[in-house]
Amino acid sequence: MQKRIITLTTDFGNRDGYAGVMHGVILSRTTNVIIVDLTHEIPPQNIFAAAFLLETHSAYFPVSTIHVAVVDPDVGSDRAVLLAAAAGQFFLAPDNGLLAFLKSWPNTRFFRATDENFWQAKISRTFHGRDIFAPLAAHLAEGLKIEHAFSEINADELAAMNQQQPVITGNEIHGVFVYCDHFGNLITNIHREHLPADMKLTISCGLHKISGLSQTYSVKKHGELLAIINSFDHLEIAVNNGRADTYFPTYAKETITITWS
Amino acid sequence: MQKRIITLTTDFGNRDGYAGVMHGVILSRTTNVIIVDLTHEIPPQNIFAAAFLLETHSAYFPVSTIHVAVVDPDVGSDRAVLLAAAAGQFFLAPDNGLLAFLKSWPNTRFFRATDENFWQAKISRTFHGRDIFAPLAAHLAEGLKIEHAFSEINADELAAMNQQQPVITGNEIHGVFVYCDHFGNLITNIHREHLPADMKLTISCGLHKISGLSQTYSVKKHGELLAIINSFDHLEIAVNNGRADTYFPTYAKETITITWS
Amino acid sequence: MQKRIITLTTDFGNRDGYAGVMHGVILSRTTNVIIVDLTHEIPPQNIFAAAFLLETHSAYFPVSTIHVAVVDPDVGSDRAVLLAAAAGQFFLAPDNGLLAFLKSWPNTRFFRATDENFWQAKISRTFHGRDIFAPLAAHLAEGLKIEHAFSEINADELAAMNQQQPVITGNEIHGVFVYCDHFGNLITNIHREHLPADMKLTISCGLHKISGLSQTYSVKKHGELLAIINSFDHLEIAVNNGRADTYFPTYAKETITITWS
Repeated sequence: MQKRIITLTTDFGNRDGYAGVMHGVILSRTTNVIIVDLTHEIPPQNIFAAAFLLETHSAYFPVSTIHVAVVDPDVGSDRAVLLAAAAGQFFLAPDNGLLAFLKSWPNTRFFRATDENFWQAKISRTFHGRDIFAPLAAHLAEGLKIEHAFSEINADELAAMNQQQPVITGNEIHGVFVYCDHFGNLITNIHREHLPADMKLTISCGLHKISGLSQTYSVKKHGELLAIINSFDHLEIAVNNGRADTYFPTYAKETITITWS
Repeated sequence: MQKRIITLTTDFGNRDGYAGVMHGVILSRTTNVIIVDLTHEIPPQNIFAAAFLLETHSAYFPVSTIHVAVVDPDVGSDRAVLLAAAAGQFFLAPDNGLLAFLKSWPNTRFFRATDENFWQAKISRTFHGRDIFAPLAAHLAEGLKIEHAFSEINADELAAMNQQQPVITGNEIHGVFVYCDHFGNLITNIHREHLPADMKLTISCGLHKISGLSQTYSVKKHGELLAIINSFDHLEIAVNNGRADTYFPTYAKETITITWS
Repeated sequence: MQKRIITLTTDFGNRDGYAGVMHGVILSRTTNVIIVDLTHEIPPQNIFAAAFLLETHSAYFPVSTIHVAVVDPDVGSDRAVLLAAAAGQFFLAPDNGLLAFLKSWPNTRFFRATDENFWQAKISRTFHGRDIFAPLAAHLAEGLKIEHAFSEINADELAAMNQQQPVITGNEIHGVFVYCDHFGNLITNIHREHLPADMKLTISCGLHKISGLSQTYSVKKHGELLAIINSFDHLEIAVNNGRADTYFPTYAKETITITWS
């Protein structure tokens, strides 16, 4: 049987054994999988960052991949355990808005986990990544039929994501920074498709103005701010050979405005 | 042949290639394994943290898993290389107290590595993780019989662990913090089984008093201290939506007292 | 078919999903591989650190391993994509000096990627790790013949590495620090083979003098500086139970001098 891929996206960090234990729980059920740690360094309880990562990165995995995302501030409450089937892949996450982005994908189906027989025998109050999500992922990888462990629900039953969409008016777009990466690049919620074609853009944020989009980082001088459409098709503010977050230390509260003429 | 699991627990960090080289040495001997990085971020030379992790996490891995733990301040001295067989799994570590916790597990057997033919051809003075532990793990995964490369020893020949056990008197328990995790949760050496059932507990540490155990993090207000039995059955001090280590920056030196009435 | 090993060495960090996406791209083409993250924590754009790691660590991986190194400050420019075949293994990296160390290995052959059919369908300007290197590694693992996707080039066509070699005179060696590891050990560019045998060495750096080489860390008192030939045969400055980088916070600019008599 073809090996299935399971990816893990959590805020558990790389320091402790929490992520490793999820590997153990999966491998206790099947070794016919390949587990990929997409990241365990989602900022603690930042549901939006996890959603953003899955939304932009999942397409680079093969058909039938099972993406497990555990950023779960309400663990131990009665929030549901969701499964979504979308774009030929599967997504497991708590029902806290993390998978809400899939509502706008075509033909997405949503399910709620109902059968505890496919979970660990003992369920803790604080670590459902290990006790519920990992075993469900393993069973799905082994061919568990969705209807045996889940019930289908309507998309409007999902918890919402307070996700800020860019505001687009006649000749302006207002966006926000949604992610700061390892290099200090600041990624916005503005997608390539939001931008007008063939217009001269001015990107403003705080006291800084950037004129036009760059094609690569290295076209600017060292240390200079630039705007670029990044490799996941989002507008990103970066600094050639430097970090954009030093220009915008409070980036999470900043607004970015794009105008054109 | 069924794939064997090898887990790695070290203080080598995730920055360098040291952990990756252990993968290389294992995979040079067999590719019929799955290697799980339990963690490489044990605080440098903190044998106790590594022991605590294996003690609480190993049960989540399948039968026959080989756990390799290399926290090895005496590397290059004549400390022995230990193998323990316990609970259907195997544990490889330097003889420095790291595996002493297995003495209290039922039917544990201990062995000392004796046959250098199963090590790397060239043994460095400073990296036995690569030169001794990784090759032994690979050979065990491939079916090496223990008696061919190890000699059995008595448990009382092992180096001891200066492991602090909680002190339990009539209606008081005194414990210590043994681990601070990624979220700033402070994990104590007090186990669920140490606590009286159905009693109203008061948890004291420094100037702070916590009344009773919480079932989940979210029952408390944001920023408030709480005590909880964590998902590995240890008493943990945490803060809802915050970090407990900011309350106790010198936690390694603190004592925690539990009283009841 | 025997599983092939692919190692990844990048400066992408462990926080984001960039490294995970490279796994996804590889696994979308073949699951008959084992991917090892050698490290994703190369200091940003530090080509030399990546080269140093591959030069010293690759030999611990099996024959036919494919090492992928992406430290790529010129991504988006017209720098070439290199493949080297050396020591029975394969190395993929941007042509920016990273693979220049292989020129001095025996029988190395160098190739330049020429056929875009083996890359992702859409090539971004900023993430060739995902779009070019990962797919090429997957195809090579699956048996792609080099001549079908690459053209051989002469070693003198490669970009050079501004790599500082130690300067050896009659009875002195001058070297530099090339790497600071997780433990604060400072690794120099001086190899065991550069040093005279059976001589009493004096190692000087700034105001510090170290007399002779230690065999292990623990022969010195806690906190004391020592010099040691490390497990990869390089001279290293370390501190027993401490960090050498606290002695030399500006180590990247320091010179280290070895004299003997």
